[in-house]
Amino acid sequence: MATLSDISLSAAINLLSAFIFLVAFAILRLQPFNDRVYFPKWYLKGLRASPTNSSRGAVTRVVNLDFRSYLRFLNWMPEALKMPEPELIDHAGLDSAVYLRIYLLGLKIFVPIACLAFAVLVPVNVTNHTLDKVANVTASNIDNLSISNIPLESQRFWAHIVMAYAFTFWTLYVLMKEYEKVASMRLAFLASEKRRPDQFTVLVQNVPPDPDESVSELVEHFFLVNHPDHYLTHQEVYNANKLASLVKKKKSLRNWLDFYQLKYFRNQAQRPMIKTGFLGCRGEKVDAIDLYTSKIEKISMEIAEERARVAKDPKAIMPVAFVSFKTRWAAAVCAQTQQSRNPTLWLTEWAPEPRDVYWQNLAIPYVSLTIRRLIIGVAFFFLTFFFMIPIAMVQSLASIEGIEKAAPFLEPIVETDFIKSFIQGFLPGIILKLFLIFLPTILMMMSKFEGFNSLSSLERRSATRFYIFNIVNVFLGSIIAGTAFEQLNTFLKQSTSDIPKTIGVAIPMKATFFITYIMVDGWAGVAGEILMLKPLIFYHLKNFFLVKTEKDREEAMDPGSLGFDTKEPRIQFYFLLGLVYSTVTPVLLPFIIIFFAFAYVVFRHQIINVYNQEYESAASFWPAVHGRVLIALIIAQLLMMGLLSTKGAALATPFLIALPVLTFWFYRFCQGRYEPAFVRYPLQEAMMKDTLERAREPNLNLKGYLQQAYVHPVFKSADEDDDDNVEDDEDGDLAYLSGKIDGDTALVPTKRQSRRSTPAPSRVSAGSSPSMSEERSHATKGGPPEP
Amino acid sequence: MATLSDISLSAAINLLSAFIFLVAFAILRLQPFNDRVYFPKWYLKGLRASPTNSSRGAVTRVVNLDFRSYLRFLNWMPEALKMPEPELIDHAGLDSAVYLRIYLLGLKIFVPIACLAFAVLVPVNVTNHTLDKVANVTASNIDNLSISNIPLESQRFWAHIVMAYAFTFWTLYVLMKEYEKVASMRLAFLASEKRRPDQFTVLVQNVPPDPDESVSELVEHFFLVNHPDHYLTHQEVYNANKLASLVKKKKSLRNWLDFYQLKYFRNQAQRPMIKTGFLGCRGEKVDAIDLYTSKIEKISMEIAEERARVAKDPKAIMPVAFVSFKTRWAAAVCAQTQQSRNPTLWLTEWAPEPRDVYWQNLAIPYVSLTIRRLIIGVAFFFLTFFFMIPIAMVQSLASIEGIEKAAPFLEPIVETDFIKSFIQGFLPGIILKLFLIFLPTILMMMSKFEGFNSLSSLERRSATRFYIFNIVNVFLGSIIAGTAFEQLNTFLKQSTSDIPKTIGVAIPMKATFFITYIMVDGWAGVAGEILMLKPLIFYHLKNFFLVKTEKDREEAMDPGSLGFDTKEPRIQFYFLLGLVYSTVTPVLLPFIIIFFAFAYVVFRHQIINVYNQEYESAASFWPAVHGRVLIALIIAQLLMMGLLSTKGAALATPFLIALPVLTFWFYRFCQGRYEPAFVRYPLQEAMMKDTLERAREPNLNLKGYLQQAYVHPVFKSADEDDDDNVEDDEDGDLAYLSGKIDGDTALVPTKRQSRRSTPAPSRVSAGSSPSMSEERSHATKGGPPEP
Repeated sequence: MATLSDISLSAAINLLSAFIFLVAFAILRLQPFNDRVYFPKWYLKGLRASPTNSSRGAVTRVVNLDFRSYLRFLNWMPEALKMPEPELIDHAGLDSAVYLRIYLLGLKIFVPIACLAFAVLVPVNVTNHTLDKVANVTASNIDNLSISNIPLESQRFWAHIVMAYAFTFWTLYVLMKEYEKVASMRLAFLASEKRRPDQFTVLVQNVPPDPDESVSELVEHFFLVNHPDHYLTHQEVYNANKLASLVKKKKSLRNWLDFYQLKYFRNQAQRPMIKTGFLGCRGEKVDAIDLYTSKIEKISMEIAEERARVAKDPKAIMPVAFVSFKTRWAAAVCAQTQQSRNPTLWLTEWAPEPRDVYWQNLAIPYVSLTIRRLIIGVAFFFLTFFFMIPIAMVQSLASIEGIEKAAPFLEPIVETDFIKSFIQGFLPGIILKLFLIFLPTILMMMSKFEGFNSLSSLERRSATRFYIFNIVNVFLGSIIAGTAFEQLNTFLKQSTSDIPKTIGVAIPMKATFFITYIMVDGWAGVAGEILMLKPLIFYHLKNFFLVKTEKDREEAMDPGSLGFDTKEPRIQFYFLLGLVYSTVTPVLLPFIIIFFAFAYVVFRHQIINVYNQEYESAASFWPAVHGRVLIALIIAQLLMMGLLSTKGAALATPFLIALPVLTFWFYRFCQGRYEPAFVRYPLQEAMMKDTLERAREPNLNLKGYLQQAYVHPVFKSADEDDDDNVEDDEDGDLAYLSGKIDGDTALVPTKRQSRRSTPAPSRVSAGSSPSMSEERSHATKGGPPEP
Repeated sequence: MATLSDISLSAAINLLSAFIFLVAFAILRLQPFNDRVYFPKWYLKGLRASPTNSSRGAVTRVVNLDFRSYLRFLNWMPEALKMPEPELIDHAGLDSAVYLRIYLLGLKIFVPIACLAFAVLVPVNVTNHTLDKVANVTASNIDNLSISNIPLESQRFWAHIVMAYAFTFWTLYVLMKEYEKVASMRLAFLASEKRRPDQFTVLVQNVPPDPDESVSELVEHFFLVNHPDHYLTHQEVYNANKLASLVKKKKSLRNWLDFYQLKYFRNQAQRPMIKTGFLGCRGEKVDAIDLYTSKIEKISMEIAEERARVAKDPKAIMPVAFVSFKTRWAAAVCAQTQQSRNPTLWLTEWAPEPRDVYWQNLAIPYVSLTIRRLIIGVAFFFLTFFFMIPIAMVQSLASIEGIEKAAPFLEPIVETDFIKSFIQGFLPGIILKLFLIFLPTILMMMSKFEGFNSLSSLERRSATRFYIFNIVNVFLGSIIAGTAFEQLNTFLKQSTSDIPKTIGVAIPMKATFFITYIMVDGWAGVAGEILMLKPLIFYHLKNFFLVKTEKDREEAMDPGSLGFDTKEPRIQFYFLLGLVYSTVTPVLLPFIIIFFAFAYVVFRHQIINVYNQEYESAASFWPAVHGRVLIALIIAQLLMMGLLSTKGAALATPFLIALPVLTFWFYRFCQGRYEPAFVRYPLQEAMMKDTLERAREPNLNLKGYLQQAYVHPVFKSADEDDDDNVEDDEDGDLAYLSGKIDGDTALVPTKRQSRRSTPAPSRVSAGSSPSMSEERSHATKGGPPEP
């Protein structure tokens, strides 16, 4: 068991590394040549110009020589805190602003809990001498402050029970206030926000195949019949996956071309030559610039062909459409209702923001979706429960005893005080960390395979999985495998009521491990985050090898984004640790508070200066955040019950059993009270905004506004990517495409003879002809109808 | 342990009692004076006239003397099967027709399973001699046919594993087909069914209090603003609970009056006298007829006063309304969407049928509802887990050993062969049955307290609770407490993976007990059901003491109703038994098949001839039925795993673990695929019906049709109840009430000065004035606007 000196060493190492990171950051960020790495957000916003273009001297353009600025190396902190929240929402979006509130939530929950715990529980624990008496347990000094120090069947456990109640009520109160606040922020954001295409648009999936009509005609007829007064227009979705991969390939080829051109430009004496064979090592030598130029030309041709094929081939249109309505009210109605008899067809939901759409997954049919969910469910189960074994093995190998056993010749080295402390205080955290690096990618692939159709939902699902994984492997895995790997097997065969006991008993012993973990992962990790080492290196590599123009330099910046799928579960883990240890080993709480405070400042700085928002989901992740804190709370309560029942405080169980029941009820209550604000869109709001807009802009051409909103990014970015050789061709294509879209919305008379099992619609279309002819006149304004 | 001879005795007793019931039924139903007890449905439909009025002789009017009819005493059975399903739906509603399909589902599942089990498993089991060798276990002959007869680690278990797969797939296949069929029956029923008020109406709950406007004005303004083109009218709900209780009291007083009047009529010499004091035993004697006449007059006055108060007092109007729309489409939209920013206000859902409304619960606010749910959840937990203890105690007392221990002097009697068989084969079932008689009432009270607002949902919730109770107490309780009451306690402390083992091991031993249970509860119980003993006695008592007119006689009939809340969980229990024992002791299956077949015939007869349908929910209970069969299937699979793991067939577990996963996935799949048909109303359907109706009846006065649809039954039944003295008064009142309702729908200009936090609506009402004035002209057609 780690002693106080181990902890101190670990704290020193981590504080030092955090300090080094901060100093390095302070120096690097002041260098003008790093400006684009540390302030990309402002470049993207167009509010900052390249300092390398300014009229300063050649050296000062690259290196900052003003020494006074180095003295104020921590002044980014107050600066990060300066921007008020409304401005932050405006600057970086609601998602980022609410994300920061998770850290604040941590502070709000744990600062009062820590004060109370230090005022009550630490004195109660420390005035015992149980651990001194037990000879065969080498208790660390930290354990004297924990619940382990209280003798069996002591009346002092009542203090812990009362505190468990107090902490629970305080946590629930803060959570409720926060949910209320975030819900009202979301509604205010949605209400204040200006017109956006997704307000009027519904994503329709699983359009049934029809032998007589194309998808586009079918969608139009269906919505003209079933939403006759409200349907405005729709956009079909093209299967552009192949096209997207071709465009991507072309981009990489152009990078190579740039590289060789730059090489030639720097050394004009010799044209760069490469071999064409395997990995550029064999085969005949050719001129690299010529080679890549011809390759790019070839792929450009292919792209043009594929683009033409997609635009013309009816099979490239997927059974999916973005249907737009005349009012927000009608879109809200369509998104919240069931359209067809068969609940697996004509599925409607709010369209994600255009930049939030995950295009690859739009056309997965319903049955395939459910099967995918089953497969991923089983796969995730195996991932979670079999990932545990290697971690546990490596961790037990990396303990002092493990090393001595595996390699007896290392014994003299390992038994050195410093190395021993290092192994005990530092190594387990690092091993855990290494194992977790590849996890997010796997989880994200799983979510993608599962078929979600927006980036935000992909990230939310990955975050949920990551959280479960963390609880099972990092939390439970560390507690059980850390003491002995063999416990894992017996644990699975244990009684239901014994599980909380087994874990509960191990909890106080693991406090020092988790303190180390917090320092490694929380303190040093966050400080490393601000240094942005990976983007920094990549930027300078690209800058040296590829950048020719200012535009290339812009592309070389990689601001990254918040990464909800990995960062949120990490924060949640600290909530879990804090809540579990609040009654057991309160000494852990200050470490967690420091983490929350430090991370809040760092991420506020990053959000203001670095991260580029990929999408805006208007804080729709909050119900998940709220739910996970509650799960952590319930786990803490159950473990407390288990721990106390082994301490001879049998009376405690009936008192503590009410807490998880109450917490669960609170969860259900909040679900009914606040969650709808994150899932549905009240008609009252929609109607209000519609009416306001109608009064303000009576002559708005909404159709024109929505026409091109949901075009696949490959079509949109066409003119950016291909500005050299195939420009005219593509522009023509895009024009053709939009002409086709326009043309489709003009009413095409149905070609079919009879509509099986649906006698009404033809009557409807006859009945509602005024609105339809109006529709047609609208449509013909946009483009000529198809022949 | 019961032997084959015990079973035979029990079977003989039960078959005999079932036969006696059937014969008694055959005789009683042919007597004309019982006609109203056994054919009330036809009287209610007006298709059968009292045989006592016919022109036959005095004796034949009361007793059937045609002996030939007695010979054909079982011919009600083919008659009950004759009516085709569509006619049955027309005759008794979809609920009843689909309810009968549950029995058919049982036959469809278990007949093929039984055939397969007898062809494969019984030969596999019976050709072993394990049980013969074990001396200390007194195995019954039935056990020779069960899995107990197979030695440990035998390869023969593979037969059981393969069969478990076969049975699972067959069950899932039948369930899916049935779900599909019922869903399409429901949709066809909803589509073919004629105009009903609930198609156009939405129940709005939690109307927020407003200082400036009445509930009625508020509702109207809200829906005129947020559904401007669709809102038609609304009805406020009066708090008539006190009125209803007064009316009920009056009815009981009139019964007493009738009783004394009839007494006087039969014996005109002496006017009936009663004492006015405590329970009619003390105090002065008065003329009973005069007393009750005056009492009725007094209460009639009170009723009139209360009625006037309810109609005039604004506090009697509850914050709830039934809002009707112009089209089914609009009602479907409103029911499926969220109306207000605050998701706990303006809650909308489909209005239940008028006769399905549970009026007392309409006005419970949201927060109170969630707290009630918590309370009932905890109460139900205690009911379920502490009810177990008395059952187990009584059952162990009622065993041979228990009786001998408790009352040694009974030993000679108890040891008689016949008594012993009776105690072992018959008593446990009866004890269980007695305990369960009071349960449904408690469960129904719980559901009512929980705040559901329709009878159908009350019954559905009670059924769910009853099912859980049955599983925990009857199924698990019998298996564990039956062998030893002490097991209960150890069971709670057992390991998760050991629980299926403990139960699984006990399962084969309990086969004989459950066979007895099936015969007592299933065979004799169902035969008792058809005899209708309780309604028969009550009818004749009432007929003798109270009936004066033909109308009174009609009221004396008590056809009863299907009673979904108690009967459905009973059927489900047989599904559970059948699925659990299908692989373990297939001998049990024929007993279950006989139950399903017999019950199907009996209940088909009852539904055709007796039960009066209380409400029509269009089979909305099917998802629950489907889900419970799946729960039973999963339980069966887990217990099979537990049983096999104790049999040394360790290899079996990985093969069997896939089954519950697959079953759960199937549940989720069906939930997505079929359940929406039972919860939501597709817009396509609504639009189709609207269009058809508009074409067929363009001049329909929908408002007139909906005006009085949702009036509290106390107001509706006014003229029926009070046809003597206060008639004019009430008619005036009702007219006033409907005048008030009419008047309210005319547009009342808002009285308030400002609308806090909602700036838009005033602008909306100004903007949408054309539709509103149209509304007004509509409304004024119905009645004069209020001053």
